[in-house]
Amino acid sequence: MTHYSRLSNIVIDVPAEVHDEELVFWQGLVGRELTRHERYPEYHSAKLPGRDLGLLVQRIGVGHSRVHVDIHTDDLAAEVARLEALGAKREFQVHAWWVMSDPAGMLFCVIPDESGALTDENARRWD
Amino acid sequence: MTHYSRLSNIVIDVPAEVHDEELVFWQGLVGRELTRHERYPEYHSAKLPGRDLGLLVQRIGVGHSRVHVDIHTDDLAAEVARLEALGAKREFQVHAWWVMSDPAGMLFCVIPDESGALTDENARRWD
Repeated sequence: MTHYSRLSNIVIDVPAEVHDEELVFWQGLVGRELTRHERYPEYHSAKLPGRDLGLLVQRIGVGHSRVHVDIHTDDLAAEVARLEALGAKREFQVHAWWVMSDPAGMLFCVIPDESGALTDENARRWD
Repeated sequence: MTHYSRLSNIVIDVPAEVHDEELVFWQGLVGRELTRHERYPEYHSAKLPGRDLGLLVQRIGVGHSRVHVDIHTDDLAAEVARLEALGAKREFQVHAWWVMSDPAGMLFCVIPDESGALTDENARRWD
């Protein structure tokens, strides 16, 4: 029944009209190129060096700009249930992950990671 | 003229009425106690283990909940000028740091770090 999770990414969500300018800005801020995802081209990302943390810029269709975090886990159902017990709510599913809201109503994502990618070394184990 | 900077913290900003519930939730999410700052008691924080990244919950007086990031630097004036050249704007100063806005208008903070804390090992050098 053990599973793992961790806070894996910071995601900058921006509407299309300001996306390109934001992408250039955040690349400059961290000094790294954010590369476009092949499978999900609305995302550009990079790992922050030595931090084991991803920075993503997401082009969104509607809505206002915001920052959210991604939680990665090796057991999506168990992690979503654990976070619900802490007070989060399921909002909707997109691709393979769940969008949840925290007690203040802010959205975050819970994303299945590759099996074996999360360990005692890089994530929190929940027994 | 060399200086360093890095993305150091994720900050969850929440109004007073939901602060305590949010604090409990985010502590549970990452599995760590967020401890109250002595000097700035509106903040509770912890380092995420093995990530060299801080998670903070800030009690705000007015405004809506949001997530922002903190940039730490060993030369505040140089880093603020660098980010202005990238398209950020100075918004206001609070305590020892600058609140700036990115091209989409989202706020982030630029904070002076202790001299010597940022190095080639843990930060980006700007020559």
